[in-house]
Amino acid sequence: MHLSHAHTPSRLQLNSQGRLRHFLTTEGLSKEQLTEILDFAESFLAPDGSITNQPLLAGRTVMNLFFEASTRTLTTFAVAAKRLSADVVNIDIAKSSNSKGETLRDMLWNLEAMTADTFVVRHSQSGAAHFIASQVTPKVAVINAGDGRHNHPTQGMLDMLTIRRHAGDFSQLTVAIIGDVRHSRVARSEIYALQTLGAKEIRVIAPRTLQPKDFQQLGIKLYERLEQGLEGADVVIALRIQNERMESPLLASPEEFYALYGLTPQKLAYAKPNAIVMHPGPINRGVEIASEVADGHQSLILKQVNYGIAVRMAVLALTMQGQLTTRKEG
Amino acid sequence: MHLSHAHTPSRLQLNSQGRLRHFLTTEGLSKEQLTEILDFAESFLAPDGSITNQPLLAGRTVMNLFFEASTRTLTTFAVAAKRLSADVVNIDIAKSSNSKGETLRDMLWNLEAMTADTFVVRHSQSGAAHFIASQVTPKVAVINAGDGRHNHPTQGMLDMLTIRRHAGDFSQLTVAIIGDVRHSRVARSEIYALQTLGAKEIRVIAPRTLQPKDFQQLGIKLYERLEQGLEGADVVIALRIQNERMESPLLASPEEFYALYGLTPQKLAYAKPNAIVMHPGPINRGVEIASEVADGHQSLILKQVNYGIAVRMAVLALTMQGQLTTRKEG
Amino acid sequence: MHLSHAHTPSRLQLNSQGRLRHFLTTEGLSKEQLTEILDFAESFLAPDGSITNQPLLAGRTVMNLFFEASTRTLTTFAVAAKRLSADVVNIDIAKSSNSKGETLRDMLWNLEAMTADTFVVRHSQSGAAHFIASQVTPKVAVINAGDGRHNHPTQGMLDMLTIRRHAGDFSQLTVAIIGDVRHSRVARSEIYALQTLGAKEIRVIAPRTLQPKDFQQLGIKLYERLEQGLEGADVVIALRIQNERMESPLLASPEEFYALYGLTPQKLAYAKPNAIVMHPGPINRGVEIASEVADGHQSLILKQVNYGIAVRMAVLALTMQGQLTTRKEG
Repeated sequence: MHLSHAHTPSRLQLNSQGRLRHFLTTEGLSKEQLTEILDFAESFLAPDGSITNQPLLAGRTVMNLFFEASTRTLTTFAVAAKRLSADVVNIDIAKSSNSKGETLRDMLWNLEAMTADTFVVRHSQSGAAHFIASQVTPKVAVINAGDGRHNHPTQGMLDMLTIRRHAGDFSQLTVAIIGDVRHSRVARSEIYALQTLGAKEIRVIAPRTLQPKDFQQLGIKLYERLEQGLEGADVVIALRIQNERMESPLLASPEEFYALYGLTPQKLAYAKPNAIVMHPGPINRGVEIASEVADGHQSLILKQVNYGIAVRMAVLALTMQGQLTTRKEG
Repeated sequence: MHLSHAHTPSRLQLNSQGRLRHFLTTEGLSKEQLTEILDFAESFLAPDGSITNQPLLAGRTVMNLFFEASTRTLTTFAVAAKRLSADVVNIDIAKSSNSKGETLRDMLWNLEAMTADTFVVRHSQSGAAHFIASQVTPKVAVINAGDGRHNHPTQGMLDMLTIRRHAGDFSQLTVAIIGDVRHSRVARSEIYALQTLGAKEIRVIAPRTLQPKDFQQLGIKLYERLEQGLEGADVVIALRIQNERMESPLLASPEEFYALYGLTPQKLAYAKPNAIVMHPGPINRGVEIASEVADGHQSLILKQVNYGIAVRMAVLALTMQGQLTTRKEG
Repeated sequence: MHLSHAHTPSRLQLNSQGRLRHFLTTEGLSKEQLTEILDFAESFLAPDGSITNQPLLAGRTVMNLFFEASTRTLTTFAVAAKRLSADVVNIDIAKSSNSKGETLRDMLWNLEAMTADTFVVRHSQSGAAHFIASQVTPKVAVINAGDGRHNHPTQGMLDMLTIRRHAGDFSQLTVAIIGDVRHSRVARSEIYALQTLGAKEIRVIAPRTLQPKDFQQLGIKLYERLEQGLEGADVVIALRIQNERMESPLLASPEEFYALYGLTPQKLAYAKPNAIVMHPGPINRGVEIASEVADGHQSLILKQVNYGIAVRMAVLALTMQGQLTTRKEG
C-alpha cells in the first residue's frame, strides 16, 4: 500500500461545514469538536454506569476492516455499533480477495458498493486509515482504530472522557504519561487531545531511548526520573510496553524497566494523593504497573474500557451524521 | 489457568434468593430449579415444533468465550441468543490479548467492562467455567457450554426435556446410558439431572475400562453386557466415542466396540418396544449406533438438537433474571 | 461428498406450485420466474441508488455454509440477509464436526434442527448446492453461492439486473462475453439467463482452449478474435481469469492474454459507442481489463456489486416464501 497523500488527516476528516466525517486523528480538531464527542459519549452513560442503547445507526452497515488482528478493539467497536442498532460485518482480510491480487482501492470500492456506511480500520502501518479515507467516496465514513505508531484516536478520546469525569477541568490538570511514548499511537492521540482541551501541563516520563522526538514544539515536559515526573501530577497514565519492544536494545529488560518506571504504590505516592491512574490495556502486571496499583482505588483502568464503548458509539454516530451531510453536498 | 476455588459450583450458581445466576452444572440444583428450566424452555416451543422468538435479552450482550473450538455448540448458543434479541459477540480467544500475556482474569474484567452481560464458556479443562464464574463481578452471568470431562449442563437439560416430552414421568422411567461414561461430561450432567428429577432407575452400560469410578454412591447400576443393561429400558442414550479415545488402549477397536456396544436394531430390541433412543451428537454411524437406529422411528436425535435451542434460550433468560436480581442486591 | 442425484437442479428448485423454493441455477427457470426475481430486486432499490431495508426475514435464520472461502460473496449475502432483518450465522466448516467424522447429511440435518431456515452454500465442487438441496427437508431453502465450474446464479441474475437497468430490452441486445467461458460458473449462469430472457445474440470471445464445449446447442456464437466479437455489441462482459488458470498451459501468459483479449479503450471502440462494460470481479487490472475501461464511464462494475445486494435480498425472500408454501404442502 502506498501511503503518500495530498491532504492532511485533520483536513480530510472534516467536511466543508466543519463537521466530522471521518475520525482519523485527534490532531487538528478544535476544542469544540473534541468536546462535542465527549458530550455525545456522555449522553450514552446511564447513572449506574451502564450504557444506554440508541438506534441511531439502524439500517446502516458498519464494516470492520482489521488488517492487523485486535480482538479487544474489534470487540469494542462491534459492541458499540450493535448498541446503535447498526448491522456489523467483520471482513476477514486475510481470506479476502486482497489475496487474489485485487488492489486495496478496488477492495474498498467493492465494499462500498456492498452498501457499507462506515469502515472501522485497523492497520499496522502508520497513515493507513488516512490513506483509506482519501480513497473512499463521500458515501463512507472512516474511523481509525489504530494505525501503526500514528494514532489511536478513539483510545485518546476515551482517556479524555475518563479524565473529564474523574479529574475534572483540564485547565487545572497536570498529566504525566509514563513509558514508550516514542512508539505509542495512544500517547500521540492523547497528547494532541490534551493540548487542545487545554491541560495545564503535559509530562512525558521515559528513558531517553523511548522519549518522543517530535513533540518538543508542543511544550511537553520530558522527564527521565519517574519520581520527578510524578510530583504534583493529577493524572498518571502508564503506557503498555509492547512485547516486541521488550527484546529490543531500547529496553535493558522488563525487570529493569519495572525497577525504574513501574508504577508501584511507593512511586505513585509522589503524585497528588487523589491522582487518578490510567492505562490503555492490556496491562503487563509487574512491568509497567504493580497489581496493587492496577487494582487499587485510584485506578480507572476498567472504567476506561467501559467509556470506550460510549466514545465509539459517539464517533460512529457523529461521523455518520457528518457523512450524510457530505453526501448531500456531493 | 489455576482452577482451585473456595466455592462449590452448585453454591456459586445460585444467588442469595436461590435463583439461578450462573449455569455451571446440573449437580446440586433442586427438582424445582431443574423443572423451572424445562418449563421455561417448553414455553418457546410452538405446536408445530418451531421455536418462538422473544425479545427477553434485547439490549443485552452475550459473549461466547470458546477456548476450545466447537462450531456445533457455538452455533446453538448464537441462535438461541439471537432468538432472544441479544447482541452476540464471539471472542476469538486464539487471537485475543490472552496471547499478549494478559491474565485470564484481566481478560474477563475487560470483557465485562465492554458491557458483557453473559459469558458462554467452553473450555477443555474441567472446572474452567466454574473458575470463571468465581472471578466475574455480579454483573455477569456465566453459562457452562462444556468444560473438560466435567459438565455440559445445557446438553444434560435438553436431554431431560426430550425425555419429559417423549417418554413421560421420570419416576416411571428406566434410563440406560451406553458408552464412555467415565470421560463424558454429557453423561455426568445427565446423571445428576436424572437423579434429581427422580428417574426410577439409571443404568450405565460400558466396558469396565470406561465405567465411571465416582457415581456408585448415586445408586447407579453398572452393566458390562449391553443386552442385560437394555432389558426393560424406557430411554436409551448412546454416547459418542471421542476420536482420541478410539486409539487408546481403553478400547480394543471401533469395530469391536460396535460389535459389543453398538446400538443395532437387534440390540435395541432388548429394550422396551416403545423405548426412545437419544445421542448427544455428532454421531459415529457404525461405531456407537447403527444407521437403522439413528434414522429409525424411535430415534429423537434431531429433536434433541431442536430442543437444545429452547433450553439454551431458557438458560440465557433465567440467568439474566437471576443476575439482575443479584446486581440489585450487590 | 457423493454428488450423484436423481433430480435435475431445475426441477428441484421449484415446488409443486412452480414457486422457487431453492435457487441453484438459472437453467430451466422460465422468463416469468427470472423476471420476478429482477422485479423484486428492483423493489429494494431507492432512486438514489441506496438499498431499502425490509424486515421480510425477521425471526428467520440464514446460515452461510462456505466450504470454499469467499469473503466477497459471504459479505454480500450477510449484508443482504441483515437488510431483511434475518439472523445470520456463519458456520465455520473447517472447524465443524465435519472434521469429527460426521457425514455431510448429518451435519445438514443438525443445522436444520438448530432452526436454520436458509442455507447459503458455496463449494468448490460442481453440483454441491444441488446435492445439498436434495438432502434437506422441506423446511429449508438452499441458495447456491457458487459451486465449482457449475453455477453462480445470483451473480448471473445481478448481471441481468444491470443489463436491464442500463442497456434496456433484452430482445434488442447483443451481449459479448470475453474470457475463460469454459471454466466459468458466472458465464454459465449468465448464458442460461440471457437465453431465457430473450437476448438477441450471445457471443463468446475466447482462445480456442477456453471456449465452452457444451453451449453450441444454445445458438451461441463463438469468436476467437476480440475485435470481431465486439463489433456491434451492446453489452461487453469481461470474465476474471482465475489465478490457477494463469499458470496452466491453456493460457500462454497473462501478458499475451491481455494483448489479445484485454479490454482496452482501443478494443472497446469496436463495440457500440454506448456499450456497457461489466465484470464479475474481483478484476485483474492489466489482464482482462485496462484501468481506463474499468474506471471509465461505460463501466458498471461497481453498480453490479450494488445490485448484487438487492438480487440476493430478492432471492432470500422469494425462496423463503416458496419454502413456506412447500412446508404447508408437506
